[in-house]
Amino acid sequence: MTSRPNSLLLAVTGWHEESWLDRFRRLLPDRDTVSAREPFDPASIRYAATWKHRPGVLSNLPNLEAVFSLGAGIDHLATDPNLPDVPVLRVVDQDLTERMSEYVVMHCLMHLRKGWTYADRQRRGVWEDDREQPAARDVRVGIMGLGVLGGDSARKLRIMGFDVAGWSRTKREIDGIPTYAGEGELPAFLARTDILVVLLPLTADTRGLLDARLFAGLARDGRLGGPILVNAGRGGLQVETDILAALDDGTLKAATLDVFETEPLPSASRLWTHPAVQITPHNAAMSDPDAIASAVAAQIRRHEGGQSFINAVDLTRGY
Amino acid sequence: MTSRPNSLLLAVTGWHEESWLDRFRRLLPDRDTVSAREPFDPASIRYAATWKHRPGVLSNLPNLEAVFSLGAGIDHLATDPNLPDVPVLRVVDQDLTERMSEYVVMHCLMHLRKGWTYADRQRRGVWEDDREQPAARDVRVGIMGLGVLGGDSARKLRIMGFDVAGWSRTKREIDGIPTYAGEGELPAFLARTDILVVLLPLTADTRGLLDARLFAGLARDGRLGGPILVNAGRGGLQVETDILAALDDGTLKAATLDVFETEPLPSASRLWTHPAVQITPHNAAMSDPDAIASAVAAQIRRHEGGQSFINAVDLTRGY
Ligand SMILES: NC(=O)c1ccc[n+]([C@@H]2O[C@H](COP(=O)([O-])OP(=O)(O)OC[C@H]3O[C@@H](n4cnc5c(N)ncnc54)[C@H](OP(=O)(O)O)[C@@H]3O)[C@@H](O)[C@H]2O)c1
Ligand SMILES: NC(=O)c1ccc[n+]([C@@H]2O[C@H](COP(=O)([O-])OP(=O)(O)OC[C@H]3O[C@@H](n4cnc5c(N)ncnc54)[C@H](OP(=O)(O)O)[C@@H]3O)[C@@H](O)[C@H]2O)c1
Repeated sequence: MTSRPNSLLLAVTGWHEESWLDRFRRLLPDRDTVSAREPFDPASIRYAATWKHRPGVLSNLPNLEAVFSLGAGIDHLATDPNLPDVPVLRVVDQDLTERMSEYVVMHCLMHLRKGWTYADRQRRGVWEDDREQPAARDVRVGIMGLGVLGGDSARKLRIMGFDVAGWSRTKREIDGIPTYAGEGELPAFLARTDILVVLLPLTADTRGLLDARLFAGLARDGRLGGPILVNAGRGGLQVETDILAALDDGTLKAATLDVFETEPLPSASRLWTHPAVQITPHNAAMSDPDAIASAVAAQIRRHEGGQSFINAVDLTRGY
Repeated sequence: MTSRPNSLLLAVTGWHEESWLDRFRRLLPDRDTVSAREPFDPASIRYAATWKHRPGVLSNLPNLEAVFSLGAGIDHLATDPNLPDVPVLRVVDQDLTERMSEYVVMHCLMHLRKGWTYADRQRRGVWEDDREQPAARDVRVGIMGLGVLGGDSARKLRIMGFDVAGWSRTKREIDGIPTYAGEGELPAFLARTDILVVLLPLTADTRGLLDARLFAGLARDGRLGGPILVNAGRGGLQVETDILAALDDGTLKAATLDVFETEPLPSASRLWTHPAVQITPHNAAMSDPDAIASAVAAQIRRHEGGQSFINAVDLTRGY
């Protein structure tokens, strides 16, 4: 006789496994949490919690009821050809959302107020102001992706004074912010954008979207001396050779990148040393592991109490 | 027979005089605007508009009705021993207020998110994140000066998530923000402050306030590895040798300074090269000259239409 399958399978790469096991064992003391690196009984697994799991590890789990992504994005799951047909749930976390807005607002302000230029002048010992700096209201920020993250960033950028608009797949309503939807409205959106903030998920539709053609469509009449790219979505959204070419020929004035085609960014990449590029190591919005683990545990309790899951991903959309 | 005194005297130093003359002549075509550098008839002067005027130039103007400061601060006027006994009016300008909040929010976020550290890592080609970064809500910002500028910064820092409190001469009410008043409550205010944002005017009471003793009172149990100073008020508020000593002995972790005891900051100052100091050339909130000139012209029209002046300074308080 086998007992009722009740275990949580943890399948993570590039993230400290032991501490995740500890967290879940603490939060879910009534069941086993097992590592995908150790042998386990497939029939015992009821849930899986993953971050960039090894492909195949989620196949042949006959009693699996749900897969939890340990982050806001699920591209690491959506690209698994053997993803089982169970609900896929992602993390929506207030802390993560606020961190992202900190990052986005900070970098938009640094571009507006020439923060990097003044830092450079300080290094050269130069006292020189710019009497004619535009105010936030003179600068148009365009946000690609108006979901949980894009929506919060939009509201906060607006409070800081920026002239904000947004673009998404379906039409969105965010009070007072003009929105554009779909490929058809993309040119109009780009044409009014001085700082392009990208908070899109990586899907079949969005892969490679940030390319030469898109950069060429950005506003050329702005107050910052050329359009600026801020990508904190996913590296797969961008074509890095096109970013470098656009920076070199003036199509882009500057870029702040938190995400890259390959991470960590290879040391041979010219992005590291380009004077108009700001690099952060994919930490725009660090997920707080304790908050994530608590959210997963709460979902499990909700499900077992007869309620439906929240933050389920629609895999036909891909995000 | 002399005509009714109706001229505006412009007395500015270190700011492009010709363009100020042009602006006022355009905005007030019905009267003369004269430069204090040229000979003029003292009896013809009805108003003076000044920025760091030459001491004495405002004396012996028998028909003077008001003095306008061309900035938000009036310390350049309050220190003139021969200031005539007429209303002194300062600029309160929405644009200037918003610029200051851009600056304050940006620099608080740069400290919170270690923006300068990541820029340095990029220069060294290092990909390294910090998994344990505090969120804005874990960081206590204390704002000295809760006037027009401090009030707006307080509100915006709070929206960005920071744990904000403020200190002023008299008790202030800002929704949801704990406030402290006067010397008596200064220790309690400092003891709960991780980032000290200074937006005070320079007066006899505030001169040299930012000294070793004050730094020693800042919170030592914060999440940023030591207290941080952001001064965008006036350079005379700070004792620069004390700032350097506090940075060197760890009493302060970092400082962002827009204002200095002597401006431009002398090239011999060690602040230029200290790795924990960020310098900007007194441009946290650039006054928009057109907006200022319009505000002065509007005040003159208001006065001549029989209404009272607004934004009058109480010189007994000194700001
Ligand atoms: N750098 C970091 O540290 C970090 C941290 C967390 C997350 N992220 C990234 O941020 C992304 C967004 O997160 P979120 O929580 O805001 O996601 P979300 O709530 O699912 O929102 C996604 C937004 O993108 C839009 N979108 C998706 N596909 C599109 C398409 N083909 N064309 C136009 N718009 C499209 C969606 O449109 P609809 O509104 O029409 O659905 C929605 O507005 C994540 O997927 C992840 O990749 C990065
Ligand atoms: N760096 C720049 O680019 C720049 C640009 C513009 C202005 N500024 C500086 O910013 C300063 C503030 O401007 P503002 O428009 O906000 O001035 P404000 O409206 O007059 O406010 C001044 C604030 O400081 C407080 N204060 C004054 N003396 C004090 C004392 N002895 N102890 C405690 N608090 C005291 C006042 O207290 P009460 O509330 O009790 O009156 C008030 O809250 C200006 O004076 C100027 O020096 C700098």
